[in-house]
Amino acid sequence: MNKIYDVFIIGGGPAGLTAGLYTSRDRLSSLLADNGLIGGNMNNAEIIDNYPAFPDGIGGIELVKLMQKQAQKYGLEIISAEVLSVTVEGDKKIIKTSSGDFTARALIIAGGSDRVKLGVPGEKEFAGRGVSYCATCDGPLFSGKTVAVVGGGNTAVYEALHLTKFAAKVYLIHRRDSLRATAIIQEKARAEPGIEFVLESVVTTIKGDNAVRKLILQNVKSKSQSILEVDGVFIAVGLKPRTAYLGDMLQLDKQANIITDGKMNTNIAGIFAAGDIRSGSIRQVVSAAGDGAVAAISAKNYIDG
Amino acid sequence: MNKIYDVFIIGGGPAGLTAGLYTSRDRLSSLLADNGLIGGNMNNAEIIDNYPAFPDGIGGIELVKLMQKQAQKYGLEIISAEVLSVTVEGDKKIIKTSSGDFTARALIIAGGSDRVKLGVPGEKEFAGRGVSYCATCDGPLFSGKTVAVVGGGNTAVYEALHLTKFAAKVYLIHRRDSLRATAIIQEKARAEPGIEFVLESVVTTIKGDNAVRKLILQNVKSKSQSILEVDGVFIAVGLKPRTAYLGDMLQLDKQANIITDGKMNTNIAGIFAAGDIRSGSIRQVVSAAGDGAVAAISAKNYIDG
Repeated sequence: MNKIYDVFIIGGGPAGLTAGLYTSRDRLSSLLADNGLIGGNMNNAEIIDNYPAFPDGIGGIELVKLMQKQAQKYGLEIISAEVLSVTVEGDKKIIKTSSGDFTARALIIAGGSDRVKLGVPGEKEFAGRGVSYCATCDGPLFSGKTVAVVGGGNTAVYEALHLTKFAAKVYLIHRRDSLRATAIIQEKARAEPGIEFVLESVVTTIKGDNAVRKLILQNVKSKSQSILEVDGVFIAVGLKPRTAYLGDMLQLDKQANIITDGKMNTNIAGIFAAGDIRSGSIRQVVSAAGDGAVAAISAKNYIDG
Repeated sequence: MNKIYDVFIIGGGPAGLTAGLYTSRDRLSSLLADNGLIGGNMNNAEIIDNYPAFPDGIGGIELVKLMQKQAQKYGLEIISAEVLSVTVEGDKKIIKTSSGDFTARALIIAGGSDRVKLGVPGEKEFAGRGVSYCATCDGPLFSGKTVAVVGGGNTAVYEALHLTKFAAKVYLIHRRDSLRATAIIQEKARAEPGIEFVLESVVTTIKGDNAVRKLILQNVKSKSQSILEVDGVFIAVGLKPRTAYLGDMLQLDKQANIITDGKMNTNIAGIFAAGDIRSGSIRQVVSAAGDGAVAAISAKNYIDG
């Protein structure tokens, strides 16, 4: 029979790593599983300016390493595994993963989210051949080229700014007439001559040959179409929570985020959610980390009965 | 007429500083008032081991400086002032302080908490003459002496550990038969020969001459009394939210903490609360900081209508 862990944590972003830091410091045996790079979407951030205590900002990958080191120092175990299903047997939680099955008293779900797809013709066909969901990962491939970023939030604007380091020209395409991004980030983008805004426009088709060559745009007001010649397109139109494997066991909101109360309780006793995957999350590193600490203390109280 | 600020923030702990970082980055004119040391109770922590991204821990005062520098970098104004009252006029919030009156569109209350008093004879009389509420501040005064710490939570045990660096002997007095503190912190205290646990006991009187000389203890089960000779006593039995100046304008819980929803809304539109002062707070630096970010984004959304 498997060892029974006190706490099983799904996801190694700021919420999961902070939960693991707290449960490990409380001497709860704790196992964290992540099916990708530890750190989640932090790995995509070249610089994080708004995590408190780093006045000059900190690289996303560096921040991940510090958080991981700290949690492991207190005993958090980390494995690379994809979670396939969760079931409840009495007061035990059974987690089936690609690296075997695990049993735990409490479960903290902090699996974060994936990028939303645009859902237009050509997107799937040219994925990895000009269509990208991560400027930090793929930016250097477009040195001297022309690229577009689709989206209007902080992520999209950050990616546009980042891409100016490589690309000769960056178009920022957004369906509304103003961006959602934080003012200071918008200002930086507007001051950057390499970025051109294409507002009130949507991408309807991605075209190319062996790689992306052009985007078909439609103006949302006039409905007129235009062609934009690009070598690559970065899609940053939102995030989709990684909750598919849960089926209908937990209460989710319309976007499939997990509904919790202020203590991070889900509708099942002993199952908690934290971070971006939680309904109403502001999707910030510091708030995800805060959620993780709250979930850890709630898990401890649950186990102590 | 006074300038109208977008956001007024009460309290310069991790919640207030993070709120100010976020509102300033969003180009909201933001003023933070604190009536003591910026950083709040963080200043009392010699080392903070559980703020994510500092694997070796970080001094409380150092963490304050980093958070303050980061928020001010983006334009947060900070003043030293005590808030005397808050009133609402239409959609404006009027904040009367010891340094004048201010008007703001949104108010974030992150004033934290003060130490709870024991409420026993001698406590008031010997305050500053052996009775202390801050081991980090006053520990060095007790070099080679005998001291007691009253309390059973993390703060009490941390203070006992800290005091072993100065005092020859540290008693840790707690009314229950077990401590509430996190396991790893308890273990450290139990491994420390300079600390002696006095459990199931309460202090009924603090006695002395020009300074504290002894504590009268009562065993909570047998009701028998005993005398403990000490040169100082550090009281760490809990925290009391700084909400007195609010009168009955906001919904409070039984301990006078401010009741909010998950977006940090209080019962008055445009007034938000964050950090230790919030009902249900786990009173951790990282969760307070997370609260501050959430309150800032809620304030931004409120101002934008």
